[in-house]
Amino acid sequence: MSFTSYKSFKQLQALSHDPLDLTKKGVLTPARLKKMQSEGLGFKLCFGTERVTDKILDLLFHLSKEAEVHKKMHAMQAGEVVNQIAGYESEKRPALHTAMRDFFDERNPAPAAVKASSLAFEEYQKLGDFMKEIHEKNQFTDIIQIGIGGSDLGPRALCIALERFHIPNRRAHFISNVDPDDATSVLNKVDLHKTLIVIVSKSGTTLETLTNEAFVRDRLKKMGLKPKNHLIAVTGKGSPMDDPSRYLASFYIWDYVGGRYSATSMVGGVTLSFVLGMEDYKELLKGANEMDKHVLAHEGRKNLPLLSALLGIWNRNFLHLPTVAIIPYSQALSRFTAHLQQCDMESNGKRVDKKGKFLHFETGPIIWGEPGTNGQHSFYQLIHQGTSCIPLEFIGFKESQYPNDIKIEKTTSQQKLLANLFAQSIALAIGQKEKNPNKFFPGNRPNRILLGTHLDPKTMGRLLSFYEHKVAFQGFLWNINSFDQEGVQLGKMLAVKILDLFVQKKKKGGSSFPLGAAYLSLLDDL
Amino acid sequence: MSFTSYKSFKQLQALSHDPLDLTKKGVLTPARLKKMQSEGLGFKLCFGTERVTDKILDLLFHLSKEAEVHKKMHAMQAGEVVNQIAGYESEKRPALHTAMRDFFDERNPAPAAVKASSLAFEEYQKLGDFMKEIHEKNQFTDIIQIGIGGSDLGPRALCIALERFHIPNRRAHFISNVDPDDATSVLNKVDLHKTLIVIVSKSGTTLETLTNEAFVRDRLKKMGLKPKNHLIAVTGKGSPMDDPSRYLASFYIWDYVGGRYSATSMVGGVTLSFVLGMEDYKELLKGANEMDKHVLAHEGRKNLPLLSALLGIWNRNFLHLPTVAIIPYSQALSRFTAHLQQCDMESNGKRVDKKGKFLHFETGPIIWGEPGTNGQHSFYQLIHQGTSCIPLEFIGFKESQYPNDIKIEKTTSQQKLLANLFAQSIALAIGQKEKNPNKFFPGNRPNRILLGTHLDPKTMGRLLSFYEHKVAFQGFLWNINSFDQEGVQLGKMLAVKILDLFVQKKKKGGSSFPLGAAYLSLLDDL
Repeated sequence: MSFTSYKSFKQLQALSHDPLDLTKKGVLTPARLKKMQSEGLGFKLCFGTERVTDKILDLLFHLSKEAEVHKKMHAMQAGEVVNQIAGYESEKRPALHTAMRDFFDERNPAPAAVKASSLAFEEYQKLGDFMKEIHEKNQFTDIIQIGIGGSDLGPRALCIALERFHIPNRRAHFISNVDPDDATSVLNKVDLHKTLIVIVSKSGTTLETLTNEAFVRDRLKKMGLKPKNHLIAVTGKGSPMDDPSRYLASFYIWDYVGGRYSATSMVGGVTLSFVLGMEDYKELLKGANEMDKHVLAHEGRKNLPLLSALLGIWNRNFLHLPTVAIIPYSQALSRFTAHLQQCDMESNGKRVDKKGKFLHFETGPIIWGEPGTNGQHSFYQLIHQGTSCIPLEFIGFKESQYPNDIKIEKTTSQQKLLANLFAQSIALAIGQKEKNPNKFFPGNRPNRILLGTHLDPKTMGRLLSFYEHKVAFQGFLWNINSFDQEGVQLGKMLAVKILDLFVQKKKKGGSSFPLGAAYLSLLDDL
Repeated sequence: MSFTSYKSFKQLQALSHDPLDLTKKGVLTPARLKKMQSEGLGFKLCFGTERVTDKILDLLFHLSKEAEVHKKMHAMQAGEVVNQIAGYESEKRPALHTAMRDFFDERNPAPAAVKASSLAFEEYQKLGDFMKEIHEKNQFTDIIQIGIGGSDLGPRALCIALERFHIPNRRAHFISNVDPDDATSVLNKVDLHKTLIVIVSKSGTTLETLTNEAFVRDRLKKMGLKPKNHLIAVTGKGSPMDDPSRYLASFYIWDYVGGRYSATSMVGGVTLSFVLGMEDYKELLKGANEMDKHVLAHEGRKNLPLLSALLGIWNRNFLHLPTVAIIPYSQALSRFTAHLQQCDMESNGKRVDKKGKFLHFETGPIIWGEPGTNGQHSFYQLIHQGTSCIPLEFIGFKESQYPNDIKIEKTTSQQKLLANLFAQSIALAIGQKEKNPNKFFPGNRPNRILLGTHLDPKTMGRLLSFYEHKVAFQGFLWNINSFDQEGVQLGKMLAVKILDLFVQKKKKGGSSFPLGAAYLSLLDDL
């Protein structure tokens, strides 16, 4: 069955012609705000400011049953081959990121995917031993992670988010771009004598990463340092990078863990455990695992990622809103949206279903955003009064991370932060009628708030997994493959052709790729 | 006349029903790529991969004549009152950011706006004297800028972009969010003994900025340091912050310079001249001024910001594409898109025209993006194969900033960067027909490349001004007020009400704002 042929789809479509008007008197009430919230694992998801009724919500959950999302989630976590397009050449793999963290409960006697979980546990133990040694030798203060995409965004976002929990005098840096200025700028900031460098590429063939590895090896040698004493590899077994003789240590990942879902594998593990220590790193994994179990255990509104996924489906497929702004009211999460941008858009930016049929409905939205309150002084003008309607997902915490706060005019900074978050949620929903047209706010901007207590490592793990599963649930609903990324291939292939032109040029003038040559010739007289 | 009643609007609308198909054989040719480019001030704007024909371009330029955009640009730079809504209460001010940098040509005997230019020059000279002193005393290594929105994003983006030109051992930091973790995290990274702190708020009343100023003053005092020896004010004359007795130095800005256009005023000046030195800061201003003059001097395709604005209009109002991804293939510009997000969305995210009439066409798009090649490993999947069509504005440079580069497999990293940029532009335009539906790329993703030689301070100034004027031209075309931001008021007002509840709560339980109280009560059992 396809998404648009489910019975509840048609019922929802009928209801979507006249969606709830949040600006109408008596619609958005305190009672609605209090009732329309669901809680679990220390989070509350407040969705009174979405344009849904109980009837719509019930239908959305019915839709999720028709799409058998729970069955699919169980299958995914159990290691069934979910990454495939039936009848066509495709990756044909499980998607087992949840197995990277289900070896706790001292130890889980029956992990969903026994083999994967057991291999992941081995690496986790290896990592623990390695970090113990590093800690005892006390020789390194800095770590540079070289990776791109999933080998960069998730680990980087988590490192920044948990800076408050970093071991004193340990710092993490990241090099991702093939732009040589990226590596130069980072290398200018560290003393390589005291620096570990972790190279992360599952395939061991990522252009940017190998280039930057060579760049750093070159620098180390020029400084009279031995690369082998500084470099760590994270890669797939048997990849061109799987050569332990060239690295201080090597850790493994597997093709059944997609890059954008890999933050809790060794892809994030080395850098995170270096700056956080193993204990807090473990808390992070445990938090993620708790949310993995939460989505298996709950079927209705208590299943927070599913609830969030369904609200997103309402906005995307029924209200036809093309983007989602994810706005954390937490400076610590300043790069979390960049991670979610990949996690969501790379997973669900698809146009064929799992049988290879072209879709005639909208899939993954454009994800963007910056932290609040910063965004209020930037792009919120358009959100409040522009001609495009943008649904928002807010994230907030009751407490700040650091105990430092200051009371000014009777309130703390944290209270000011929360006051702004709540005020925006309400303002966007109800708008403002005004005679001066320039002070008129249309309202009806659907939004929801995910509210937590305190952003510590465990909470961060839960939040990470919350979004991984929200994305997966949406993919299950649309019946698409959220785990491949064929869309990156064409550009890669053409880039190789253009690189050939750069090489040929010196000899003759290359025209094996005329369009590329045309661009190259534009460079000549710059 | 309104936008949609121009003669060329209707002609363009007729043509838009059957837009150019870039995937058709013979459409995207090397000749087209070479012909469809325009150059000026060291930049080439390559737009062969946009879905336009010469006829459409001619009509777009005709549209710009009907909208009298040149007259409006001249009026703006000459200091006419362009920030207003006729017949309604509004700010009624000029928009004179160009006057912040038109006092060169040793010195311009006839600046467009004599008085504003002269006042700006005074501050510029004051800044020079102050920086000379700071340099001689050699007491400060770090500077923290406290500001939000325009007092943060532009200066921060420029600081990062020009890191390669920073004076050795000078570092800039930024605190913007009212989240107390933002200030704590930054303060943990500096030695306040050696740190200048510049507080930037035009009104002198910005909640976040005043709160963070108090936070930092408190910290300085606790350390036994005198705030007056460290703090610099940038504010409007007569604002609550205009109290030179409390600051080491005070610099002025004026209400006719909008926050999002203020990077070349003292809002950016103090921090930028501290890290760059006055000479390079001057180059930045000169570059911006050159682009200001460029847009006055040229009417047709040679006017690069206008050309870019018109291509944007085609995508927004005729192809109905709601977002624009701005992707610099330059790690130095990693935060430039965040600045443009404000500059564009706050300026043109409007729903009334300059007479207060509600609009029935789309205005400012959603601006988002991250640097390439990073984005290729993240959200490009959706751009290539998703169900939403996203136009792209690429920015690239022939050379890297630092001379360090490395040749691997016969090409440098910079060549790899450019190869990817060109490859993406072509791939997005032409797509790929394939039997395997999962490897099918629809193509026809309109995109253009702004190509420069080297990102130095002068080029950065030109680029900044390029986008300021692109945004202004679009506003002129739509006949909206690109210089106010009424949309930020409603949320501010409700936040004040909620802050009251935080205060009252301790006493009774507050219900002066029941919706706010409902949210507050959700915090209780978290």
